[in-house]
Amino acid sequence: MAKNHGRLFVISAPSGAGKTTLVNKVLKLCPNIVRSVSMTTRQIRKGEAAGRDYLYVSKEKFESLIKVNGFLEYAQVFGNYYGSPRKFIEAQLRQKKDVILTIDVQGAMKIQKSMANKAVFIFILPPKFSDLKKRLLKRKSDSSKEIANRLRIAKQEMKYLKYYDYQIINDDIKIAYQQLLSIFISTKCKILK
Amino acid sequence: MAKNHGRLFVISAPSGAGKTTLVNKVLKLCPNIVRSVSMTTRQIRKGEAAGRDYLYVSKEKFESLIKVNGFLEYAQVFGNYYGSPRKFIEAQLRQKKDVILTIDVQGAMKIQKSMANKAVFIFILPPKFSDLKKRLLKRKSDSSKEIANRLRIAKQEMKYLKYYDYQIINDDIKIAYQQLLSIFISTKCKILK
Repeated sequence: MAKNHGRLFVISAPSGAGKTTLVNKVLKLCPNIVRSVSMTTRQIRKGEAAGRDYLYVSKEKFESLIKVNGFLEYAQVFGNYYGSPRKFIEAQLRQKKDVILTIDVQGAMKIQKSMANKAVFIFILPPKFSDLKKRLLKRKSDSSKEIANRLRIAKQEMKYLKYYDYQIINDDIKIAYQQLLSIFISTKCKILK
Repeated sequence: MAKNHGRLFVISAPSGAGKTTLVNKVLKLCPNIVRSVSMTTRQIRKGEAAGRDYLYVSKEKFESLIKVNGFLEYAQVFGNYYGSPRKFIEAQLRQKKDVILTIDVQGAMKIQKSMANKAVFIFILPPKFSDLKKRLLKRKSDSSKEIANRLRIAKQEMKYLKYYDYQIINDDIKIAYQQLLSIFISTKCKILK
């Protein structure tokens, strides 16, 4: 990545850590930051919007993109593909836009391998596990079985914390937002070596 | 330095870059950040205050401190000693205070050798050289000969920019302050490795 390009910010968080709220707040206030929307072959769900939650494509289309190195990273989960479209992200960076990529730890680890020091890795943590459970319970769409599953995954994901550059503990949304914004601002002041 | 200690921020800037104003603003608003006052053997000057501008000591006292490894770095300039007292800085860091050390590039380079990745190095730049001259001319205490000399030094100092972690271009004081504060906040979110 050239020095005068935008920067890629990879953000991971256990489900329920408040990642979406925080990221949306940043996007609303910082016109120079854009979010990369993931591509998937899974069916659109109720409440989701194409282009906002995911770019929904056919399996054939996805696999043809894989062949032309069209993803920064991709994975297959329960038979469905999920991936970060390379073309969009690289075009934004060239236009000096900063790009936020919110993906799970597996995806983040893949990007870390291919982009080394070129991206900034941020992990957002819920204040406590008990609190994470509370937040998940508030979401009426999740069954208790799914919540138990998500907590298990969150515990596993947090083992990858050490591979990230920054952690934000989302205890107080105002402080967490200030911290996230500070990471964006200070990254622009970083002297690239 | 232990993970739960404060952090050391080493700030350098060519004379006239606006470093003092920026640092004072941070100190005023952040009670958890303290400034390390340098020790010197030179005479106190008109307008200076002991303990604010420097800690003024005798040559004997300074040399006895050198013998007991009492400085993070020190130098002799035109027969006078200048140094950063180790005891004060380390005590503050242990008390989880962040410490700002405003020193010249030579001093910063010495600290970088001894503290490696344990300190954060920030370089504050004036927007343009012409602007730096303007700022220096505004200071009535400086003769034109001294200004020419300072500009020459500033040019030399800027060669060391690449050894720093962050640069702040003090074009707009409000933006520069926000950037400096962001470096402090984001550093606290950094995952130490």
